[in-house]
Amino acid sequence: MVEKHFSLLKDYETVRAVSLKIIEPLEIEEMVVQPTTEVSPIKWHLGHTTWFYEKFILEKLGYELSNNASYNLIFNSYYKSAGKHWEQGKRGALSRPTVDQIIQYRKSIDKKIQNLSLDELKKIDSLLIAGLHHEMQHQELMYMDLKYVKYNEVIKTPYIEATLTTQQSAVEGWQTIQEGLYIIGNTSKHFHYDNETAPHKVHINECAISKNYVTNGEFLEFILSDGYKRAELWLSMGWDWINNNNIYAPLYWHKKDNEWHEYTLHGEVKLNLQSPVAHISYFEADAYARWKKLRLPTEFELEVFDRITSSSHSRVSRDNTLHPQAIRGQNNELWCWTSSQYSPYPGFKPFLDSLSEYNGKFMCNQFVLRGGCFTTPKGHYRSTYRNFYLPQQRWMFSGIRLTKDLHEF
Amino acid sequence: MVEKHFSLLKDYETVRAVSLKIIEPLEIEEMVVQPTTEVSPIKWHLGHTTWFYEKFILEKLGYELSNNASYNLIFNSYYKSAGKHWEQGKRGALSRPTVDQIIQYRKSIDKKIQNLSLDELKKIDSLLIAGLHHEMQHQELMYMDLKYVKYNEVIKTPYIEATLTTQQSAVEGWQTIQEGLYIIGNTSKHFHYDNETAPHKVHINECAISKNYVTNGEFLEFILSDGYKRAELWLSMGWDWINNNNIYAPLYWHKKDNEWHEYTLHGEVKLNLQSPVAHISYFEADAYARWKKLRLPTEFELEVFDRITSSSHSRVSRDNTLHPQAIRGQNNELWCWTSSQYSPYPGFKPFLDSLSEYNGKFMCNQFVLRGGCFTTPKGHYRSTYRNFYLPQQRWMFSGIRLTKDLHEF
Amino acid sequence: MVEKHFSLLKDYETVRAVSLKIIEPLEIEEMVVQPTTEVSPIKWHLGHTTWFYEKFILEKLGYELSNNASYNLIFNSYYKSAGKHWEQGKRGALSRPTVDQIIQYRKSIDKKIQNLSLDELKKIDSLLIAGLHHEMQHQELMYMDLKYVKYNEVIKTPYIEATLTTQQSAVEGWQTIQEGLYIIGNTSKHFHYDNETAPHKVHINECAISKNYVTNGEFLEFILSDGYKRAELWLSMGWDWINNNNIYAPLYWHKKDNEWHEYTLHGEVKLNLQSPVAHISYFEADAYARWKKLRLPTEFELEVFDRITSSSHSRVSRDNTLHPQAIRGQNNELWCWTSSQYSPYPGFKPFLDSLSEYNGKFMCNQFVLRGGCFTTPKGHYRSTYRNFYLPQQRWMFSGIRLTKDLHEF
Amino acid sequence: MVEKHFSLLKDYETVRAVSLKIIEPLEIEEMVVQPTTEVSPIKWHLGHTTWFYEKFILEKLGYELSNNASYNLIFNSYYKSAGKHWEQGKRGALSRPTVDQIIQYRKSIDKKIQNLSLDELKKIDSLLIAGLHHEMQHQELMYMDLKYVKYNEVIKTPYIEATLTTQQSAVEGWQTIQEGLYIIGNTSKHFHYDNETAPHKVHINECAISKNYVTNGEFLEFILSDGYKRAELWLSMGWDWINNNNIYAPLYWHKKDNEWHEYTLHGEVKLNLQSPVAHISYFEADAYARWKKLRLPTEFELEVFDRITSSSHSRVSRDNTLHPQAIRGQNNELWCWTSSQYSPYPGFKPFLDSLSEYNGKFMCNQFVLRGGCFTTPKGHYRSTYRNFYLPQQRWMFSGIRLTKDLHEF
Repeated sequence: MVEKHFSLLKDYETVRAVSLKIIEPLEIEEMVVQPTTEVSPIKWHLGHTTWFYEKFILEKLGYELSNNASYNLIFNSYYKSAGKHWEQGKRGALSRPTVDQIIQYRKSIDKKIQNLSLDELKKIDSLLIAGLHHEMQHQELMYMDLKYVKYNEVIKTPYIEATLTTQQSAVEGWQTIQEGLYIIGNTSKHFHYDNETAPHKVHINECAISKNYVTNGEFLEFILSDGYKRAELWLSMGWDWINNNNIYAPLYWHKKDNEWHEYTLHGEVKLNLQSPVAHISYFEADAYARWKKLRLPTEFELEVFDRITSSSHSRVSRDNTLHPQAIRGQNNELWCWTSSQYSPYPGFKPFLDSLSEYNGKFMCNQFVLRGGCFTTPKGHYRSTYRNFYLPQQRWMFSGIRLTKDLHEF
Repeated sequence: MVEKHFSLLKDYETVRAVSLKIIEPLEIEEMVVQPTTEVSPIKWHLGHTTWFYEKFILEKLGYELSNNASYNLIFNSYYKSAGKHWEQGKRGALSRPTVDQIIQYRKSIDKKIQNLSLDELKKIDSLLIAGLHHEMQHQELMYMDLKYVKYNEVIKTPYIEATLTTQQSAVEGWQTIQEGLYIIGNTSKHFHYDNETAPHKVHINECAISKNYVTNGEFLEFILSDGYKRAELWLSMGWDWINNNNIYAPLYWHKKDNEWHEYTLHGEVKLNLQSPVAHISYFEADAYARWKKLRLPTEFELEVFDRITSSSHSRVSRDNTLHPQAIRGQNNELWCWTSSQYSPYPGFKPFLDSLSEYNGKFMCNQFVLRGGCFTTPKGHYRSTYRNFYLPQQRWMFSGIRLTKDLHEF
Repeated sequence: MVEKHFSLLKDYETVRAVSLKIIEPLEIEEMVVQPTTEVSPIKWHLGHTTWFYEKFILEKLGYELSNNASYNLIFNSYYKSAGKHWEQGKRGALSRPTVDQIIQYRKSIDKKIQNLSLDELKKIDSLLIAGLHHEMQHQELMYMDLKYVKYNEVIKTPYIEATLTTQQSAVEGWQTIQEGLYIIGNTSKHFHYDNETAPHKVHINECAISKNYVTNGEFLEFILSDGYKRAELWLSMGWDWINNNNIYAPLYWHKKDNEWHEYTLHGEVKLNLQSPVAHISYFEADAYARWKKLRLPTEFELEVFDRITSSSHSRVSRDNTLHPQAIRGQNNELWCWTSSQYSPYPGFKPFLDSLSEYNGKFMCNQFVLRGGCFTTPKGHYRSTYRNFYLPQQRWMFSGIRLTKDLHEF
Repeated sequence: MVEKHFSLLKDYETVRAVSLKIIEPLEIEEMVVQPTTEVSPIKWHLGHTTWFYEKFILEKLGYELSNNASYNLIFNSYYKSAGKHWEQGKRGALSRPTVDQIIQYRKSIDKKIQNLSLDELKKIDSLLIAGLHHEMQHQELMYMDLKYVKYNEVIKTPYIEATLTTQQSAVEGWQTIQEGLYIIGNTSKHFHYDNETAPHKVHINECAISKNYVTNGEFLEFILSDGYKRAELWLSMGWDWINNNNIYAPLYWHKKDNEWHEYTLHGEVKLNLQSPVAHISYFEADAYARWKKLRLPTEFELEVFDRITSSSHSRVSRDNTLHPQAIRGQNNELWCWTSSQYSPYPGFKPFLDSLSEYNGKFMCNQFVLRGGCFTTPKGHYRSTYRNFYLPQQRWMFSGIRLTKDLHEF
């Protein structure tokens, strides 16, 4: 086997092992429940990421689907071309396959992949790479989902036992972006998603982006200034959303004995005012920026920012901390909301075949987030990466960087 | 310890063991999920029945609640006087306490009950008996719920492996009820629910009640005669219900390769035409009766019928069959819908204190079912027993007995 | 023409005129809107009552339907046998036919009816009588609906200009009902609804029924005693209903400058403590009775009560007052909630043909009200009359009579 | 009075008269109903446009609000800074003020405006101009809403009696847009909305835009090719929308006797294959473009297109036709969907004070439409105008222009 493909199978082994590592601290019951539609059962992620290889690679190579049609129904997320799929909001109503059966399923697919001939591998190597990135993406989702599951319990327990330590930020100030025409989008030959192409020119006016994230302390000032009660700070849909859902603070915050606390993967802690504010919706990020008389960056500005700063090189040194930290050396601790609604780039072409549904069909009513976060797997980070969520969603690890215009309009 | 109380603790042991027996064939995952609001997770039943003893007996005796307030929140079903309770439709969103923790909880409460002093027992013996009946009631609910859970799966598996055998009915014809004033309600000194009192006079006109249940074969004729498509056979709410929910056959029936099948606790089988039709709503029972130009019995008529026939003596010989059988010797195989809406009897007084919420507050928009079924625990059967469900519910083991008027109006 | 039929056409003329009299004080706009599903636009009542004669009488006699199929679609309320009908909750979305066109429609049908030959009249005289009762029933509905329409406005105006005068009650105490077997149901040859038959024996225990309605002042005490906040007073569904809908007082009550006011057909007035409390739901009537440690009467008890008291003779002296008054000489000012769920009497047979849908198909999840109210047309009153509403409804003129048991259970 | 202000009052008179002209053919009833949330009663538009002058101009000048607080509550659409407003979806539940009262209200406000002193006029002239544009915008809305109202009727009638005549398109082919940096946004000193500023540079790649709209005939091909049934053509939200709402053709189309018909303001007509397809959602426009292997233009491309073509000069010659026509000389017959989600321009500053809510707070989950339509008042047209709707909305006069890339990516 040539080295490139040997290395690919090595990567496969590594990525697959991470998913199982993530569930180690969990009880079976914690992998079954689905407390809200957008949060999938953890066991479903284990099955779905496996099905992805089976459906899009092994079946293409002529292998028969195992487990009749039922796994295809259950573990297909939303690929209409791959047949019917179970309703997303009802994944938590299924107890079967059990966690144990899913782990057996993983093993059986792993074996088939590892036993592929060189000829077979050559035919599907780019799909296999896509599959690994898909699984990495789900590993971050697993952290998001398990955090929500554990927070939603009456009996809240930490995901990891280690005490959460927090640090001061080591960076300061604003990074200027010069006016000019920039090439936006991915120009490399390495793997990237279809939504990062085609590279194209975008004009940016002079502006400056904060090197630090907005902190819990700063966001608390917004709350104390009645930020959640002043209609003029909010988008119309945002105002309706906070009022219909009784939103008055970021997700995972609550007041106990008159002191703010935050649920973290390390358990509940007193709110650390130095840490970046996390788990906020676009609506909240936007209202905060308006309150500060500043604005959120566009996705183009943030792509340039990311290229300029060293953030892509030194990020994600986790040292047992599963929580966003104050910034030291430009780590990407949180996905940053941008003011850019998620649209196709000029010249956008979806992935081919089944994977054509991967990104393009979601380009509606979502906002782009940029930069990665502390649970983003190392191999899954790119300056050109376009993450996206609905403006009211906030169970992902989202945060705020502010922007100020230097251009005079 | 005096014999009566010794015997009570013996009963306690027996009843408690049955709940654990029921879950033996289940996977942990199967005890967690809640496929629809009315179906509770199996593990919740294990906890709730235990909490009932702790909250209403041990706490009254001065014992402290274990597990702080969280178990009281989670396992309280609907007793407003017992504090806040978790929302019924979200029980399946909680993974904790785990099955294992709940079984530990059961053991700890069992130990406290078994160690009660004679003085303590005397104070609470009637509450303890109520607790046992409450648990028996939940044992039947566990069968209802686990059947629905297993049916709702994409991957359907049997609850028990034994093959389902079916038999012919051994009884025939109609049982006449003479016109007269009857005493309705429970007059005994043995345990019974508050809703069975006060005994009072009810005038009944001469009528006759079918000794057999309506069978699958008979109900199939109704379907084949377009019974589900003829508005004139249905209550207005029933017609809306079948049309809004696309109902065209009893729950658990479906057609495969042009043949009707039924999901049972023994797995999926071809529809047995001799067996009683089960899992039908009031709306369907009522429409069927109208189609036959007959009617459903009142709850008073069925109480008298039950007293006359030997049904109370020889029922529930289960011989490994967990499915309603054709009638032999007047077994009560299925709860029979009555035309009686669930109302308080004249002179009705709710149970005292916390248990006052047990029955009375549900006397609205429900219909009474009578007679017990094949999963009703032996000690939980009474001729005067008033079961009740909403007219659209059908996941319980419900069936039909028809009635004809002999009186001329 | 024989006298009987001449008199029938005279009655027709009288009844028809009343409907037009009711709308005299209304603006066109007020006859169009439908503020909530259960309230129909006033103009719809004008059309529907007319369609009733056309569809069930004229068409039967061979007359063609006017206005093609559209009026049949629009003005059919719920008669499945009469073809499709427009959705109830969307009646207020239709501007056509306009009020003017509907009045033309009324005239054209009136003309056809008045021109019927004696032979024709003989064939349909009982249907015509039914039609008149149907229209009288809708006249009461028109008062209910227009009151709601005018109350729902931001700009509330009175329906009639006359000042509302109120009086003291002239009766006192309790009316005893002796224990015994009573014949319940209508035994006369005069017109009555199918749901009042068949007459049959019902055993009643000794009890006493209040001669007066519960007053606003008495109900206010319930409110001031936190009646709406004590779960133990409420049916489970009622408790959910008041909490989900933020109910804390009868419909049409509200507090202004710390004083209770009530919207009436005479406009908004200060709450009169002597007047009967009106516009309450079954849930509220039931909770009030429980709070008084009394109960609501059954429909059988109220039928007997009505026969004993003189209420059927001297009621509805309206003297320009369109509001329930304190009782003088046993007027029936308000429909009284009973604890009886609406079920078929033994031997119940629905009306024939199309009219079979008139009553029977609603015998589910409703409670019976008895006695008539101040807007019930004179000719539409009977001791055996069974009115019925859902337990949460309260826009009809409903009130409370209390009952106490004299029998010892 | 100086000429400029004299001319302004003249414009006021003209604009105001148009609103009353629009309602001439309507019955009172047709101005009251609200068949769906997004469609407001026609009488509400008459009141709301009047309130706009009273609240934002007269009150600012020190005049007292007429009609107490009720008109302010009823006719405020969504201005949080102007106090509470009645719920949008319940405007059709109010019959008062009546049409007559609203016309009186219009007259009284008109009188106050016409009587303003020169000093007063100078203080508020820009607000008055904004008010006129606001009213013109609502005049287009009135056409949209009354079309929907009349279509929603069981008894559908035309809005105008004149027969609809249709013509062939007189233009052909594609208009090329050269690659380059363009200034986008309004640079003039004349009135324009805040959302058209600030002017800023946008890079556009070479592309070509169709001079004609997509026609009914062309869209019909899409339907006949199963366009509504092929998931791969649709955005994910669009697919759910068509399936949940049973969408299979543009709004106002339906098949009768196997032939397609369209409801127009001239009544129902056979579908004219030469006319532009109208009343389609973004989802449908986008799916159609994908099916043609082309794309929708961006709003920047369409702004440039509009500048290049003569469309701004010769449009809106209505000649009694109230329906989009095939293009002759670049008329703007229909608003064109763009692929641009509605976002703030760089340097965007909302209008001051109360009008700050006019546009900015809706910049979320909407798509921009460009170009104006046949009901857009003449004075209300601008190349830089940014109209916007939710992607599923289609009761506005929306159409499709296609774009092809000439740039090679």
